[in-house]
Amino acid sequence: MAHIQLEKGLPGIRGPLVFSPETSKPVGDLVETLLRGPNTLTPAEREMIATYVSSQNDCYYCQHCHGAIAAEYLGGATADYQLIDEVKQNFEQAPLSGKMKALLAIAGKVQQDGKLVKTEDVERARQQGATDKEIHDTVLIAAAFCMFNRYVDGLATWQPRDPELYREIGKQTSRLGYVKRDYSKRYNE
Amino acid sequence: MAHIQLEKGLPGIRGPLVFSPETSKPVGDLVETLLRGPNTLTPAEREMIATYVSSQNDCYYCQHCHGAIAAEYLGGATADYQLIDEVKQNFEQAPLSGKMKALLAIAGKVQQDGKLVKTEDVERARQQGATDKEIHDTVLIAAAFCMFNRYVDGLATWQPRDPELYREIGKQTSRLGYVKRDYSKRYNE
Repeated sequence: MAHIQLEKGLPGIRGPLVFSPETSKPVGDLVETLLRGPNTLTPAEREMIATYVSSQNDCYYCQHCHGAIAAEYLGGATADYQLIDEVKQNFEQAPLSGKMKALLAIAGKVQQDGKLVKTEDVERARQQGATDKEIHDTVLIAAAFCMFNRYVDGLATWQPRDPELYREIGKQTSRLGYVKRDYSKRYNE
Repeated sequence: MAHIQLEKGLPGIRGPLVFSPETSKPVGDLVETLLRGPNTLTPAEREMIATYVSSQNDCYYCQHCHGAIAAEYLGGATADYQLIDEVKQNFEQAPLSGKMKALLAIAGKVQQDGKLVKTEDVERARQQGATDKEIHDTVLIAAAFCMFNRYVDGLATWQPRDPELYREIGKQTSRLGYVKRDYSKRYNE
């Protein structure tokens, strides 16, 4: 049971978003801009960074939700879901670009403590073609998911274990995004 | 030197905010709503939560910036600045309400990992008179500063050591807030 009175049937962050509409507006605008706004990183790449950080923070809801969104952007095949699992388990060995591996390494350090990011981490990303904007966005995505993960876990929200629910969220969010997405659907708790 | 090319003379988060106007809008709206919007927690109390979390994350800029804002809300006397130091060092012994101590304890757990917040932590806050909304806001403030601290530190922003600069930011922000505040002033790096 959640630590505060949240509406039934709303998984993960949806309960707190409905509980607090005044903060959910800027929170929604931030995630929409960060993960879907115009960018040289694809939405799938940005969702992978979000998924990796959420898995390092051990947030069940966020890692499965954003993992499914990333996989659906890639096409939604079983192989796409498998790739996301590989990213979470060992991104250095996953079939990703050198740039993505360098950005995920930066994200992993930000997840622990921003001060762990060193000049050589940033140099590695630059050598793989990352721009200042891509490095900035990687740091902010990783930092933002340290917020979202704590928001979802710190209130002990309902985090269902049914993979089908996350697949549905992945399909819907990859199509509509975070602002236009339909939050009204209640699931059986 | 910052990891990416930021404008000179802008301390802490100001460099990244100017670098990325599209994300600085929702980031600014979020902090304004969270720390200054209508609330049963005073702006000073909310800034104390932000300061405590930032000190636990060892973010020099954020803990001194928000510490000064909190102290200025309280009146800006030396004793107000001393109280903020006591909150950072050992809030359980500081001259605060039982409710504030219980909320700071929750914030400290969220800073580490949201899953550490237990029913008894929330019960303690409720027994001291905290509402669901106050518990929600405490969790979100703590989570949000885990983002801001990592954003500021992860890009290796310029974090000056001059106490006068933080006092000036404290005075200005406690008067004007986060959205109307003048970010244009350049300091000598």
